[in-house]
Amino acid sequence: MEKLVGNAIFGQSGGPTAVINSSAAGVIITALQQEGVIEKVYGAAHGIVGMLNEEFFDMAEEDMKELELLKTTPSSMLGSCRYKLANADEDDTDYKRLLEVFKKYNIRYFFYNGGNDSMDTCNKVSKYMQKVGYDCRVMGVPKTIDNDLYGTDHCPGFSSAAKYIATSCMEIYQDGRVYNTGQVVIVEIMGRNAGWLAAAAGLAAYAGSGPDFIYLPEVSFDLEKVFADIKQRYEEAGNCIIAVSEGVTDADGKYLPELIGTVKTDAFGHKQMGGTAQVIADYIADRMDVKIRHIELSLLQRAAAHYASKSDVEEAFMAGKLAVEKAVEGYTDYMIGFERKSNDPYECEYILVPLEKVANTEKMVPREWINEAGNGIEQGYIDYCLPLIQEVSSTPTENGLPRYARLKKVLAKKD
Amino acid sequence: MEKLVGNAIFGQSGGPTAVINSSAAGVIITALQQEGVIEKVYGAAHGIVGMLNEEFFDMAEEDMKELELLKTTPSSMLGSCRYKLANADEDDTDYKRLLEVFKKYNIRYFFYNGGNDSMDTCNKVSKYMQKVGYDCRVMGVPKTIDNDLYGTDHCPGFSSAAKYIATSCMEIYQDGRVYNTGQVVIVEIMGRNAGWLAAAAGLAAYAGSGPDFIYLPEVSFDLEKVFADIKQRYEEAGNCIIAVSEGVTDADGKYLPELIGTVKTDAFGHKQMGGTAQVIADYIADRMDVKIRHIELSLLQRAAAHYASKSDVEEAFMAGKLAVEKAVEGYTDYMIGFERKSNDPYECEYILVPLEKVANTEKMVPREWINEAGNGIEQGYIDYCLPLIQEVSSTPTENGLPRYARLKKVLAKKD
Repeated sequence: MEKLVGNAIFGQSGGPTAVINSSAAGVIITALQQEGVIEKVYGAAHGIVGMLNEEFFDMAEEDMKELELLKTTPSSMLGSCRYKLANADEDDTDYKRLLEVFKKYNIRYFFYNGGNDSMDTCNKVSKYMQKVGYDCRVMGVPKTIDNDLYGTDHCPGFSSAAKYIATSCMEIYQDGRVYNTGQVVIVEIMGRNAGWLAAAAGLAAYAGSGPDFIYLPEVSFDLEKVFADIKQRYEEAGNCIIAVSEGVTDADGKYLPELIGTVKTDAFGHKQMGGTAQVIADYIADRMDVKIRHIELSLLQRAAAHYASKSDVEEAFMAGKLAVEKAVEGYTDYMIGFERKSNDPYECEYILVPLEKVANTEKMVPREWINEAGNGIEQGYIDYCLPLIQEVSSTPTENGLPRYARLKKVLAKKD
Repeated sequence: MEKLVGNAIFGQSGGPTAVINSSAAGVIITALQQEGVIEKVYGAAHGIVGMLNEEFFDMAEEDMKELELLKTTPSSMLGSCRYKLANADEDDTDYKRLLEVFKKYNIRYFFYNGGNDSMDTCNKVSKYMQKVGYDCRVMGVPKTIDNDLYGTDHCPGFSSAAKYIATSCMEIYQDGRVYNTGQVVIVEIMGRNAGWLAAAAGLAAYAGSGPDFIYLPEVSFDLEKVFADIKQRYEEAGNCIIAVSEGVTDADGKYLPELIGTVKTDAFGHKQMGGTAQVIADYIADRMDVKIRHIELSLLQRAAAHYASKSDVEEAFMAGKLAVEKAVEGYTDYMIGFERKSNDPYECEYILVPLEKVANTEKMVPREWINEAGNGIEQGYIDYCLPLIQEVSSTPTENGLPRYARLKKVLAKKD
C-alpha cells in the first residue's frame, strides 16, 4: 500500500492495568523505529484530552532504557482520562479541534490504548477522519482487566489481574478459615457488567483453596438466596468465604448498593456508592451472629505488576508493536485482537478486528461456564483461563523494590 | 545438660502471616529428626485450645514433601486461636487440664508460635510447669507481622508483610494519580499499636512512588490537622495519597472507628480494628469536593506468600528449627530472637530472649524514625527495613497457581 509519511500520536484511556504500559512500550518503541515513515512520536497526556489541549510529549526525548522499563511499570504512564466524545453528527466541536491539531502537527498515525469506551473513541475518530478525507491511519490497542472486548479471545490486562485475583483468593482462603471460631469472608472483585475477573476466584477453588461460592453479574443476584447459601455452608463447615463481582445486580438490574438503599450523598451532592461486599456484610450481620470480614481488592487487582502474567506482558507489548507495524503497512480502522490456536502449548495469533465491531459491544462470560445454581464456576472457564496465567513476569528491582520507568515527559512545542 | 526423653507438642496462635508455616516446618521437621529424644511430634489444632481439648495431629503421619511445602504456604496450617489463659494464681483450671494432657501424652517439649499474646501464653505455661515441678522444656517461636515483640531486631512475618505493603503502595500510587481529574486515596494498613507496617509505606515513598503522607500510631492523630495536610497537597498537586495505620488514636487514645462507635472487642479485650480509612474518607467527604477512594490491605498484607521476603521465609524456618535444637540441648523458658550484625551484607544472629521479658511488652517505632510533623518516615526506618525485603521467596506452583502443603492431619489417638 501507499507509504504515508508523517507523525504519530498515542494515547491511553480508561482504567489502568498492570500491563497497559507494556502496550505503550510496544507502540512507542516500534514507532520510533519507523525511519522515513513516522517522523515524530507524540505521547498524549491523559489520552484524548491531552490531544484536544495540545498537551503531548515528544517520545524521542526519552531514554530507551526507560521506555523498556515501561513493560513492567503498572498504570498508565502518560495519564488516562474518562472522556466520552459526542457523536459527530450531533456535536462535532471536538472532532474539528482534533482535526486542527492533527493538521498542525501532521499527525498521520493515531494509536489508542483502552477498553470499550476507548475503542468507541478510536472508532469515532477513525470514521470522522475518513469522512472529512484527512489521511490518518487509526489503530486500537486493546486493554481492559474486565476482558469484555468483543472480537478477541482475551484482552491485555485481564490475565495479570486474573492471576493476582486467583492467588489472592487462595491466600485469603488460607487465612480466612484459620481460627477455632468461624467467620464469613466476602471478597469483592472488579467488573461492572461482565464477570470475567470474579470468575478468576474459581481458579482458586480449582486449586483447592478457593471461595465456597462465586457470584457474577451474568446471573441475577438474589440476596435472600445468597444468604441461604452462606448460612448453610457456615453451619456445615464453620466458615464461609465468597467472592462477588462488584457489578452484580438484582432481577430489576439494580446494583446492590442501590437495592439496599445505602447510596450516600456527600456534602456536594455526589453519590458515593457503598461497596457491594459491604452491603452483603450488613445484610448478613442483621440476620446472623457471626464474625464478618469484607475485602475489596480495589486498585490492587489492576495494578499488581509485581505478579503480572508473563504472557500478558508480552502480548500487551506485541499488540502495541503490531498496531504500529500494521498501520505502517497501510491498515487502518482496526483493533489488534487475539485468536487462540492452542491451549497446550498455549498459542495465540494476532488478528485485526474492525473498530466498529468492537466499539461498545460487551462480551460476557458464557452462561455454560457458570454452574446451574449461579454460585460457582465450571471447567470451561478454568480451561480458558489457566493457560493465560502460567508464569509470573520478572520485574526489575532496585533495593528490593520495583524499578519503574522514569519518563522525562518533555512537552512538544506548541508552535 | 540432662537428656530429656518424651514427646513434643507444637501450636500456632494469633493472626496468621505469610511465613508462620515456615516456622511450623522448622519445628516439625527438626523435632521429627530428634531420634531417641523426641519420640512423638504432635501439632495442636488451633493452638492451646487444641491442647486443652486433646485435638492434635500426629506429625509423623505427614509426607516430608508436604512438610517442606509448609515453608511457602501462608496462614496457620494447624489452625490458630485467640484464647487468653487466666493468671494461674486466679484460676488454674486450664493449667491443671494442660498438665493432665501433658502427663497423659508424656509431653516434654512445648513449642508455641505467635506474637505478644502467644508469648504470654508460652510464658505462663512455662512458669506453671516449673512451679508444679513437671519437667517440660518450653520455647517460644516468634511470629507477628506487627513486628512489636520485645527483645528481637524484628519478627518473622514482618519482612514479608513490609515487602508486600511497600510494593502495593507503589502500585496504588501509580494507579491513584492517573486521571486528568484528581482524587484522594487512603490506604489502611494493619498494626494495632505499633506502626512498623504502616511505616513500610515509607519505602514506597523512598522509591519515588509512595504516599504523600504516612500516619503511625506512635504519634497522636488529629483529624483536623490530617485533613489540612491532605487539602493542601491536593490543591498543590491535584492528587493526594496517604497511608494510615489502623491503630492511630486521637489525643484521648481513642481509635478512629471508636469515634463513630463501630468497634467490637475480642477475647483478649483487644478492639477489632478496621474502618479507620473509612472514617477519614467520610470526614473528607463532608468538607471537600473531591473523589475519594479508601483501600484496606486487610488479610492480603499478612497472607501474601506469593511475594514473601526470602530472608523472612528462611529466618522463620530457622527460628523453629533452633527452638527445637536449643530445647533438646536443655534450654527452656526462652523465645528465639534476632540480633542484627550487619546491614551490608545483611546478617542476623539468633539469640535467646527470656520469655517473661517478651510477654506483653510492645516495641514501638522509635520517634526519631518518624518525621517531626508526624506525617512521614525518616531514613532510620528505611535503613532498618530495606535489608529485610531484598529478595522474593520462590513459591512452588502447579498450573500457574501456588501449590500449598496438603496435610493429612491424622488425629492422635485419645487413649
